[in-house]
Amino acid sequence: MTHPPDAIRVAVVGATGYAGAELVRYLARHPKVGLVAVTSEQSAGRDLAEILPSVRRKLDLRLEAFDPSAIAARADVAFTALPQGTSATGVAALVDRGCRVVDIGADFRFRDPAEYARVYGLHPVPHLLGQAVYGLTEYCRVSLPTARLVANPGCYPTAALLGLLPLLERDLIEHDGIVIDAKSGVTGAGRTVSSEYLFAEVDDNLRAYKIGQHRHAPEIEQQLRPFIGGDQGVTFVPHLLPIRRGILATMYVKPRSDIGIAAFEAAYQARYAQERFIVLSGSRPPEIRDVSGTNDCAIGWAFDARSRRAVIVSVIDNLGKGAAGQAIQNFNVMMGFPETDGLDHLAVVP
Amino acid sequence: MTHPPDAIRVAVVGATGYAGAELVRYLARHPKVGLVAVTSEQSAGRDLAEILPSVRRKLDLRLEAFDPSAIAARADVAFTALPQGTSATGVAALVDRGCRVVDIGADFRFRDPAEYARVYGLHPVPHLLGQAVYGLTEYCRVSLPTARLVANPGCYPTAALLGLLPLLERDLIEHDGIVIDAKSGVTGAGRTVSSEYLFAEVDDNLRAYKIGQHRHAPEIEQQLRPFIGGDQGVTFVPHLLPIRRGILATMYVKPRSDIGIAAFEAAYQARYAQERFIVLSGSRPPEIRDVSGTNDCAIGWAFDARSRRAVIVSVIDNLGKGAAGQAIQNFNVMMGFPETDGLDHLAVVP
Amino acid sequence: MTHPPDAIRVAVVGATGYAGAELVRYLARHPKVGLVAVTSEQSAGRDLAEILPSVRRKLDLRLEAFDPSAIAARADVAFTALPQGTSATGVAALVDRGCRVVDIGADFRFRDPAEYARVYGLHPVPHLLGQAVYGLTEYCRVSLPTARLVANPGCYPTAALLGLLPLLERDLIEHDGIVIDAKSGVTGAGRTVSSEYLFAEVDDNLRAYKIGQHRHAPEIEQQLRPFIGGDQGVTFVPHLLPIRRGILATMYVKPRSDIGIAAFEAAYQARYAQERFIVLSGSRPPEIRDVSGTNDCAIGWAFDARSRRAVIVSVIDNLGKGAAGQAIQNFNVMMGFPETDGLDHLAVVP
Amino acid sequence: MTHPPDAIRVAVVGATGYAGAELVRYLARHPKVGLVAVTSEQSAGRDLAEILPSVRRKLDLRLEAFDPSAIAARADVAFTALPQGTSATGVAALVDRGCRVVDIGADFRFRDPAEYARVYGLHPVPHLLGQAVYGLTEYCRVSLPTARLVANPGCYPTAALLGLLPLLERDLIEHDGIVIDAKSGVTGAGRTVSSEYLFAEVDDNLRAYKIGQHRHAPEIEQQLRPFIGGDQGVTFVPHLLPIRRGILATMYVKPRSDIGIAAFEAAYQARYAQERFIVLSGSRPPEIRDVSGTNDCAIGWAFDARSRRAVIVSVIDNLGKGAAGQAIQNFNVMMGFPETDGLDHLAVVP
Repeated sequence: MTHPPDAIRVAVVGATGYAGAELVRYLARHPKVGLVAVTSEQSAGRDLAEILPSVRRKLDLRLEAFDPSAIAARADVAFTALPQGTSATGVAALVDRGCRVVDIGADFRFRDPAEYARVYGLHPVPHLLGQAVYGLTEYCRVSLPTARLVANPGCYPTAALLGLLPLLERDLIEHDGIVIDAKSGVTGAGRTVSSEYLFAEVDDNLRAYKIGQHRHAPEIEQQLRPFIGGDQGVTFVPHLLPIRRGILATMYVKPRSDIGIAAFEAAYQARYAQERFIVLSGSRPPEIRDVSGTNDCAIGWAFDARSRRAVIVSVIDNLGKGAAGQAIQNFNVMMGFPETDGLDHLAVVP
Repeated sequence: MTHPPDAIRVAVVGATGYAGAELVRYLARHPKVGLVAVTSEQSAGRDLAEILPSVRRKLDLRLEAFDPSAIAARADVAFTALPQGTSATGVAALVDRGCRVVDIGADFRFRDPAEYARVYGLHPVPHLLGQAVYGLTEYCRVSLPTARLVANPGCYPTAALLGLLPLLERDLIEHDGIVIDAKSGVTGAGRTVSSEYLFAEVDDNLRAYKIGQHRHAPEIEQQLRPFIGGDQGVTFVPHLLPIRRGILATMYVKPRSDIGIAAFEAAYQARYAQERFIVLSGSRPPEIRDVSGTNDCAIGWAFDARSRRAVIVSVIDNLGKGAAGQAIQNFNVMMGFPETDGLDHLAVVP
Repeated sequence: MTHPPDAIRVAVVGATGYAGAELVRYLARHPKVGLVAVTSEQSAGRDLAEILPSVRRKLDLRLEAFDPSAIAARADVAFTALPQGTSATGVAALVDRGCRVVDIGADFRFRDPAEYARVYGLHPVPHLLGQAVYGLTEYCRVSLPTARLVANPGCYPTAALLGLLPLLERDLIEHDGIVIDAKSGVTGAGRTVSSEYLFAEVDDNLRAYKIGQHRHAPEIEQQLRPFIGGDQGVTFVPHLLPIRRGILATMYVKPRSDIGIAAFEAAYQARYAQERFIVLSGSRPPEIRDVSGTNDCAIGWAFDARSRRAVIVSVIDNLGKGAAGQAIQNFNVMMGFPETDGLDHLAVVP
Repeated sequence: MTHPPDAIRVAVVGATGYAGAELVRYLARHPKVGLVAVTSEQSAGRDLAEILPSVRRKLDLRLEAFDPSAIAARADVAFTALPQGTSATGVAALVDRGCRVVDIGADFRFRDPAEYARVYGLHPVPHLLGQAVYGLTEYCRVSLPTARLVANPGCYPTAALLGLLPLLERDLIEHDGIVIDAKSGVTGAGRTVSSEYLFAEVDDNLRAYKIGQHRHAPEIEQQLRPFIGGDQGVTFVPHLLPIRRGILATMYVKPRSDIGIAAFEAAYQARYAQERFIVLSGSRPPEIRDVSGTNDCAIGWAFDARSRRAVIVSVIDNLGKGAAGQAIQNFNVMMGFPETDGLDHLAVVP
């Protein structure tokens, strides 16, 4: 790959995890990006092509250990995809050195250090929390061009929030009783080497986990708080699917008494009709494969007359809109590039 | 297989579908059963071993076309596993000829012909509806010994009802807002040859379907009606999983204001502690693989403090407790046999 | 998608099959292509986005029934991906009307009508067989610029030939006893709606099929004939894998008595070092995921001392280098475009 | 489970690995076995039902650390399923204390300590190697009744040898050029927690591994040596399938010049017609699902005229005939029980 002469110099910190590899896959074809550095603690010194064979002849990069000074010296922007807890100080070091950062990790998603502490523990650089932009692109564009640090949303929150916010913005649903039944492929857990993610444990199986205890629930609630208030929680239950990538969130809400399905349709159209990465599929519920390998979020909805509830189905690729894709979308807005640059893939089907 | 001298003579009508084949798998090892006839319209005249190679040397049976007179003459009990709509008249012909029937199909699950008509269309033998016992074994034992016709519950209703009924019997939850988010393996659809069930369409995918329109919703509501009344519906959304067998139903309910998790525990223990096919897993949510290949239903539950909701997770093998297993359990009660006869398998893991 | 002003006008005939959809996925991002027509007999009149939801907002095309005159009037080049037997006359009609064709089907892969007849039956337009270029790109480049009709190789032959030809060209292996043990994902069979391709039949299973009878064996032998002669056959056994896309061919050959592994390495390097779509992985056997979603073929090799045999492992994506990818690679050579135009994807991993 | 009064007291050493759990699944229903002890180093002190939920109410056993004296005092026979290298001394301690052992591990499969050393390293108790019976049941029955130690064959060797030996016994094939292309589900590697067995690495993928270096190749050659001699090797290439259980071995052989397919059929019939666990499927190649969950081995064969080679396809469940099933079959012969006791399962399909 030869870089365009005026390319933005970009680094991927944590390039051999699943989200990092997806960043590489997208960035390698971004028309305005020069990928100048890729880091990996475990594989430092090896060619990227040893870990990701298909980059051979397309990218000639050697993995290096993450050194914030070295990265900041060579890169204008860094995408950081580090395990939770190891990310905050490294990100701070990059930001301090003038390198703009889109962080795919969880360390900068909470505005309030106390809330972060309740969920994850003490934050090592709490002063940065207030500077980070929560990067749900469709809802934060105005803040991105000047952002030094973008906290890319979690995968589950991305799927849930994109489906719920248009309804709450127009006050179409009751605040009590919001249920988010979410199902995710295994890459949502990253490349965690644990017996629970072995093929023989995941295949032909399904399980719910962390009921009422998943860290993405307070992240969702933080973003819903302007609408539902601080005392109201959502019921969020994640499930582990025997697939590699993709999230499908089935959400159950109670429409306000005079609200019909036309009001839902209107709310989604008003909010998303011009969005390039949101596909409204109406009464046909979207499938995970509709968005696999892309930065799209597809949303469908239906009313159930007998139970007087509405059902919203939202799907994303957890490595796309749920991680690497949205990170690049945020980057494009930060840089003033067309939002689809590097992200105009069609879904890989089947 | 040589039959025990006093074996009950049993026929499987529709033996080459997925539920039928599972009946054969279980019945071949039932200590008090002689399998005397297996029918298949498509494969009549062929050896069963051609279709199910592993029966070779264990069962020597030839598939025949379904002739009610011929079956009733040779079998004391028939298990019928026929496609919906083709079942009712055949079942009636068997019952009229004195053959007791456990019907795995959907034709006799509604008591009210008008309700059946709303869901499936006109019933060809409506007078039989009142005679059929709805065979959720744990809730119908008293009726089984004299039953001539047992309507085996649907797979989704089995998973949902076993989880919900103990709570409703003790009035622990509110009737409004019951959500059943159910996920099923593809064999729930039978051996339907349709593009939507092709490997390339199902693998690495997940989709919701028939939101608010699945025929199992009114079946569930019929069984809940004594508790929640006739006007209240449940929200039921099924999903198609990329697995072969198994159902996991995640159910969301609102505990009555003074009810805590101990009351849930007490209700489940009181109802199921003596049940041989119900495994209470408490706060550890059960996984599909816990019950794969068995007649077990495993149930777990948890409270979510912030949303003031409870979550119940119920898993079955849709071909086991959801079809063939429960049919044989019903048969055992009908005959006065130990309920575990032929059903004492351990889960096939992994 | 707006087309570049001097774009080549391209049609995809049979756009809703698996290979056709993959053509659309690649062509949508080809920098020098305007996709002007897509056909489907089953879905004529519907928007392409109904069938392939992810094209929404990227391609605005309506599916039409295949009319050779209409296509030839609007397209400079047509990619035809039609079921075997339905392709030949349509392709001929296109060629007669001056539309250049890359045919992904099997109808023009044999040079000799008698050989075609032995394998597939009488050929309807035998005079065209001699005009078709067998489009294994790395071996036919000189013929492509003037080709009116390119017969894209079968998926299995592509994987096998790319691994075997460099060894035969240098006479490194014996001609007798070549074994090709090939394993393919289900999309190799196209979107065939047959019970054998149902998820429940394919998942957690593996089966060999058409041993000694697969139509790709004579296709492979035709291409090997200049080296091994007309009387010598290869042993070719295909297997159906529980995956969606990808072929891995494990090939067993007997090196000539004085030939060592260095000669293999030299042959592959000489033949492929400059090839952009062939990845030589040496003693590390390549995996299917190395090439998934791409036009790459990856080849590895090893010697087994005790049995005095060599093993070659060749992997492709059957929808990429095995179908749509190679078709576009051929197209690029036909047009004088850089060979990687529209094909510079990295593998989708995981 | 209550034991029959004269039950053989049996222990499973290493009960929570995949092969160990399968032993428990089979033994729990063996009519003449009382399962008196189960060991696990990692889970000692926990109830077996915590690890294998489906044993709840069927087996009431607590996992214990492996203490050979304690096991030998309580068990007549022990099945040992320990990781390679940790097995030999424990097995020796059991045998020394008079406990008969069926070892599923690899430590006693070689007769010659020097050969063991070449493959695995120095053997800690080499004097026992000569006493161990290589437990390919169909070929060692005469030795089993008096055996103190049975070395259960490896999974790949079981599949390969059962297909090859009848042909070699009758001298129907040439010794040079035997190719064994074997494909296995992931449980063949045991419950190894390694990134290469993660779901995201295995799913939708296939890879060959250890070409010419797998430890099962010399094990196969040891058993073939009486026929092919000591200098002749076989070409053995294993592949990792994205399935949980099952092995399919496709074997390529050269029939002697005057040998036709009828001679193959006759050889297999003569050898296996009376065998209860070998299914001859003739020209229909068997599939993995034909034997899934059982102790069966299914074998098919075909001749390829043009290449003058024959193809043998042999399938087993690697946890059944390839491990736990064959171990129990060996045990049954040791004890003089009917060979099918505890093993009369039908395949779990689908």
